[in-house]
Amino acid sequence: MKDYLYSIEMETRDYECDIQGIVNNADYQHYLEATRHKWLQQEGFSFRKWHDEGIDMVVSEITLKYKTPLHGQETFLSCLNLRREGARFIFDQDIYRKEDMKLCVSATVSTVCMVHGRLTRGDEIAALFSKYL
Amino acid sequence: MKDYLYSIEMETRDYECDIQGIVNNADYQHYLEATRHKWLQQEGFSFRKWHDEGIDMVVSEITLKYKTPLHGQETFLSCLNLRREGARFIFDQDIYRKEDMKLCVSATVSTVCMVHGRLTRGDEIAALFSKYL
Amino acid sequence: MKDYLYSIEMETRDYECDIQGIVNNADYQHYLEATRHKWLQQEGFSFRKWHDEGIDMVVSEITLKYKTPLHGQETFLSCLNLRREGARFIFDQDIYRKEDMKLCVSATVSTVCMVHGRLTRGDEIAALFSKYL
Amino acid sequence: MKDYLYSIEMETRDYECDIQGIVNNADYQHYLEATRHKWLQQEGFSFRKWHDEGIDMVVSEITLKYKTPLHGQETFLSCLNLRREGARFIFDQDIYRKEDMKLCVSATVSTVCMVHGRLTRGDEIAALFSKYL
Repeated sequence: MKDYLYSIEMETRDYECDIQGIVNNADYQHYLEATRHKWLQQEGFSFRKWHDEGIDMVVSEITLKYKTPLHGQETFLSCLNLRREGARFIFDQDIYRKEDMKLCVSATVSTVCMVHGRLTRGDEIAALFSKYL
Repeated sequence: MKDYLYSIEMETRDYECDIQGIVNNADYQHYLEATRHKWLQQEGFSFRKWHDEGIDMVVSEITLKYKTPLHGQETFLSCLNLRREGARFIFDQDIYRKEDMKLCVSATVSTVCMVHGRLTRGDEIAALFSKYL
Repeated sequence: MKDYLYSIEMETRDYECDIQGIVNNADYQHYLEATRHKWLQQEGFSFRKWHDEGIDMVVSEITLKYKTPLHGQETFLSCLNLRREGARFIFDQDIYRKEDMKLCVSATVSTVCMVHGRLTRGDEIAALFSKYL
Repeated sequence: MKDYLYSIEMETRDYECDIQGIVNNADYQHYLEATRHKWLQQEGFSFRKWHDEGIDMVVSEITLKYKTPLHGQETFLSCLNLRREGARFIFDQDIYRKEDMKLCVSATVSTVCMVHGRLTRGDEIAALFSKYL
């Protein structure tokens, strides 16, 4: 397994599975979002506080590669790394089935920084994230 | 079929179905909520505007009776009636499979009125809803 | 707090919150379902195995009383009891916000037993559940 | 607007919106999936029938570009094109807000064909889709 900045153990739920008994493609986005929010929470950041200060971190693009499907009530590891690329802050996120550490989903989530509704070069977020970049 | 104040045709989606190929129990609550909001919208009401004026209509209790399950990509009729019972405004909501008009779910949704966060006797909402009660 | 047969700690996720910042009413049904499935899993039961043997436990009615709303990334305790009432197996389920143990949702979930698609008096399930009833 | 093979009018629902009042990123995947399934249904295809015959069309990769957010109870147009690229069948899907035809989401959804669980070169699906390719 690669090195990650953050990883968390999560579990699928039966209602997330479709008729084939596998997790619906869209639900992985929920897992990925929950992972980013948990990491931010752990680091003491708050989307809501930023929002109140006029700073929004907005997902501009996401690519998901589906490798191995998860089933109901399966435990998985959700891992993330962070990097900056110009104005974009990119989360590289991987989801592994815990049982055999098989890679299930590999995602690239690009975010941009808006200040008072205006796209910026990201320096406000870069200052906050300096120790991870 | 009973008389209803409002009814709308809707359709299930495959991602709402679970491993048995039937719509997950919780998704009917989504259909019922969407139906209430569509009715309010049609009547020119707006939850958001009410909220900005300090008035909130809050679901306090819901009972759902599951009669016949819906499957993926099935069309259904979602119908509602409204009545007042003291401080509560009660939506009686039924969902019928369109194909054979079989009753799928029968629900009773009790709502109460909060003004600036305080439970009221509902007179603010009653005034707005007078022509339906 | 009352005595419960089973309780589990869970956490809300931001995507489950609506525009008011509180968990959408339907998502509590997801929490309640996940809790029942976790309990069954812990006790060594399997819906899927039962289904393959022709036995289905089906939700026939659910009543939810909404007391206090949960917000995003809040931890809660989801607790259940089980009782039999004629042909019905009833789960009494309560959800408490962990921080102050305030009751958030109180639910009654009635299930019935189908064997090969036919409603039964529930003796097949009663035999399996004898030690909890 | 570009030419599309298929387009359908849909509407957002309030429960799909998050605390900022905009549709959650993952819900667009639901819209895109529902659009593909509606198109297949209209053309007389059936995922379920294919599955019973051992043929599965599986999403291997999806890229979503988020341009303009949708809000609650907004009507939008969901459009798709289809092309083949080697073993992959690629749906190019765009979502436009109906009110002003602003592009909201632009997606590329790559699917592959599995026959009895084995990845194929896609000739089974190509034969079925010949008139669209």
